[in-house]
Amino acid sequence: MKSDAPTPLLAAADPTPATAVPITVAHGDGIGPEIMQATLKVLAAAGARIAPETIDIGEKLYRAGHSSGIAPEAWESLRRTKVFLKSPITTPQGGGYKSLNVTIRKTLGLYANVRPCVSYAPFVATRHPKMDLVIVRENEEDLYAGIEHRQTDEVFQCLKLITRPGCEKIVRYAFEYARANGRRKVTCMTKDNIMKMTDGLFHRVFDEIRAEYPEIETDHMIIDIGAARLATRPEQFDVIVTPNLYGDILSDIAAELTGSVGLAGSANIGEHVAMFEAIHGSAPDIAGQGIANPSGLLLGAVMMLVHIRQADIATRIHNAWLCTLEDGVFTADLAGAGRVGRPFGSMDFADAIIERLGRLPTKLKPVQYQNPAAPATPTEAPAGGAAAPARRPAARKALVGVDVFVHFSGHSADALAARLQSCPSAALRLQMITNRGVKVWPGGFPETFCTDHWRCRFVASESGGQVAARAIVDLLGALTDAGIDVIKTENLCTFDGEQGFALGQGQ
Amino acid sequence: MKSDAPTPLLAAADPTPATAVPITVAHGDGIGPEIMQATLKVLAAAGARIAPETIDIGEKLYRAGHSSGIAPEAWESLRRTKVFLKSPITTPQGGGYKSLNVTIRKTLGLYANVRPCVSYAPFVATRHPKMDLVIVRENEEDLYAGIEHRQTDEVFQCLKLITRPGCEKIVRYAFEYARANGRRKVTCMTKDNIMKMTDGLFHRVFDEIRAEYPEIETDHMIIDIGAARLATRPEQFDVIVTPNLYGDILSDIAAELTGSVGLAGSANIGEHVAMFEAIHGSAPDIAGQGIANPSGLLLGAVMMLVHIRQADIATRIHNAWLCTLEDGVFTADLAGAGRVGRPFGSMDFADAIIERLGRLPTKLKPVQYQNPAAPATPTEAPAGGAAAPARRPAARKALVGVDVFVHFSGHSADALAARLQSCPSAALRLQMITNRGVKVWPGGFPETFCTDHWRCRFVASESGGQVAARAIVDLLGALTDAGIDVIKTENLCTFDGEQGFALGQGQ
Repeated sequence: MKSDAPTPLLAAADPTPATAVPITVAHGDGIGPEIMQATLKVLAAAGARIAPETIDIGEKLYRAGHSSGIAPEAWESLRRTKVFLKSPITTPQGGGYKSLNVTIRKTLGLYANVRPCVSYAPFVATRHPKMDLVIVRENEEDLYAGIEHRQTDEVFQCLKLITRPGCEKIVRYAFEYARANGRRKVTCMTKDNIMKMTDGLFHRVFDEIRAEYPEIETDHMIIDIGAARLATRPEQFDVIVTPNLYGDILSDIAAELTGSVGLAGSANIGEHVAMFEAIHGSAPDIAGQGIANPSGLLLGAVMMLVHIRQADIATRIHNAWLCTLEDGVFTADLAGAGRVGRPFGSMDFADAIIERLGRLPTKLKPVQYQNPAAPATPTEAPAGGAAAPARRPAARKALVGVDVFVHFSGHSADALAARLQSCPSAALRLQMITNRGVKVWPGGFPETFCTDHWRCRFVASESGGQVAARAIVDLLGALTDAGIDVIKTENLCTFDGEQGFALGQGQ
Repeated sequence: MKSDAPTPLLAAADPTPATAVPITVAHGDGIGPEIMQATLKVLAAAGARIAPETIDIGEKLYRAGHSSGIAPEAWESLRRTKVFLKSPITTPQGGGYKSLNVTIRKTLGLYANVRPCVSYAPFVATRHPKMDLVIVRENEEDLYAGIEHRQTDEVFQCLKLITRPGCEKIVRYAFEYARANGRRKVTCMTKDNIMKMTDGLFHRVFDEIRAEYPEIETDHMIIDIGAARLATRPEQFDVIVTPNLYGDILSDIAAELTGSVGLAGSANIGEHVAMFEAIHGSAPDIAGQGIANPSGLLLGAVMMLVHIRQADIATRIHNAWLCTLEDGVFTADLAGAGRVGRPFGSMDFADAIIERLGRLPTKLKPVQYQNPAAPATPTEAPAGGAAAPARRPAARKALVGVDVFVHFSGHSADALAARLQSCPSAALRLQMITNRGVKVWPGGFPETFCTDHWRCRFVASESGGQVAARAIVDLLGALTDAGIDVIKTENLCTFDGEQGFALGQGQ
């Protein structure tokens, strides 16, 4: 149904070249161009002081032979404007293309993915009418480093990397976000009962940094329990900070619980550049029909406006958008569920928002954004994230052994051990063999299922002693000369006397 | 409220030594002993033909210096009986103890974690009254191999391992389970849009094996979308098969959605041994009070009875338990929610089940278990899982380069590249450097945040050529002699001409 909203109370501001902030815009694939057109129309009508410049990324670029989906001139624009409003893109299936989203995030150091998940009951049907939470997802590391190797006939590996500066940046961002946005609690979720070193680091950094924010309540949950709690009682959460993969899963759960994934935007914040987008994909099945809901991208653009210190415009747009919900204006994705009348197309929906600029919602809670603090230095993006943590002094690192991974198609760990032990090494001795992490030598069980991928742990011949780096090279040489198929190594080190490697399962 | 159930219609069967199946029982920590006592009482009253022998595992063993939480005599019992009914245990915090659950699963090759998640509306409050799904979680590999290394001052790593036989075993089990239990659909969930090699293998094996089960409907979902769908529309799922970590998260979500995590049991199935347990933990806060709900362990024991081909007893117990729900018998964990009367203690609850042996539920759907097929060979556990897939013929593997990971505290990839290139290697040339997976040389961007952990990709000097294993050792020797801190290596191989390694992000 068409709303009978009054004429807008507020005239659009008059952007002048002097105040217009250059931003980079990508219209994307699928429904991307339609929702971007609608979004930019609303921004212009609301008086956003922006000077958009357009880049091409995504499917067209992949097809043109840019294996990363982006061309050099696009990078130039992004690095210059430092603000990116991005429509969804399509990564072609097959061909081993890297996800462009991941590439942009990582190349530009967009370490924080910020995703508010809010219910709009009763205007959008949801089982969880009181949800209002924000997921702050680490955006650069974890398994998304994309470092994968096939190592044997049977075994494929992906590296999960968690770094101290990465943890410090995201955890600090979450607390700063909570403080700036009047949020009261930050919950950390990890799986550190299993991954004691990697996820353990994330949890430890959380414990270190939360001490600096005594006014903010904190909690830690194991990810499986936390995800289950989120799925059933999302209203209990406020800000959640978590590593990349968990954040990916939690974000989708939370968005779905609100009743529609079509209404959520997200920010990707870096030290230098920030990117704003809808959380949904490019929906090629409905592309070109002019029926897509631009709300997700629009709310991403609202976050962008706050970021570039145009909180007044952001507030005006967001409240007008809330008014459309209250007035029963809807796009095709929200049809049904007792709604009457015909759904609005993308551009009509934009017009409906524009008609309501200057109005405040009466049943949903109006928003009131504040401009963030001005950037500390001119080289930072406007309202950019925290600066990178300073590099800490190096720990006292000692090399104490090496895990040598061997491709061996036999089934007997004893036979492999005998072969390994026949290779001369004065400095190193074989301590243990595991298969998929389980100790199979010495003293393995026949029930343990073994693949063709064996981790052979060598430690200093002298108990507790150190090993010269050269001794490891010599060991690898001896193994190689004996025809053993070494496929990878992992050095074993202590850091300030603390063991930097996990025991084998059953060790 | 106390039920006015009639006297049991069915007398307990009389177990004789000749028919009693030896099983191993661990009473566990926290509430473990209480719920095990209640469970064994029900089993005995129902005429289960079992001969339990008790082992000690868990907290007591950790404290006694067994770093894996289990002693040799316990292993002996498990390996002999091949059937394990286990109460929850407590892993002490701190001290770097490995999870005993993980150790048992992996050492005994319990590759399939099977967890039915069922709603019991209206007798247990839930937003999802029509849920009836089973999660078949891979139980041995993925990030739970527990292979973690601290590699630099800043970077910690965990290996995610996915193997072809591991995928084949779990996917086949899921289809066999579906077929044996009249389930109609199997949904696979992975994150293979990001982890194209590891999760890609799981998905590929799913596609291979599903072709053998044409009567079963199949589907694949990306895990974030799948988890969101599960959280909001669990009634749409039947059997879900998924790698370890995702399964861990999904299992907890699904259990929570049923309205109580206290009512679910699970099976851990291996080729030789199988373990049955409750899904909940040891709840030390309520231990020793006699108020814990034994239902989870009891339903685990029901799965055990089916496994040892006592489907008649399993059916009788499960239906009697459903009758207690219908009659409003409840333990303290389910108090509130409109229930009247006092909660039952653990043993009183067991008695209430025993009183109802022989009755069928009238509102909830009665169960009717079938004995699985007899084991193919006497060495298998009764009704054990599928035998391990035969090892496939080796692929034609060619070594084409090596990723050398370097601990380097500088900030300039160019400087590092210059140092690496100054090391003599006729056979290999530096192709690329990445930091956390992102290409930073050649042609990096200053916006990319760099840690002290650099992956340096060397490939054959001759474009597309092969490399001798010895050439890699020589390169490592040259790097080491030049004072470069090599912390790990990953060989680059092709398998039957197909590249066995991922590109760098931005490459």
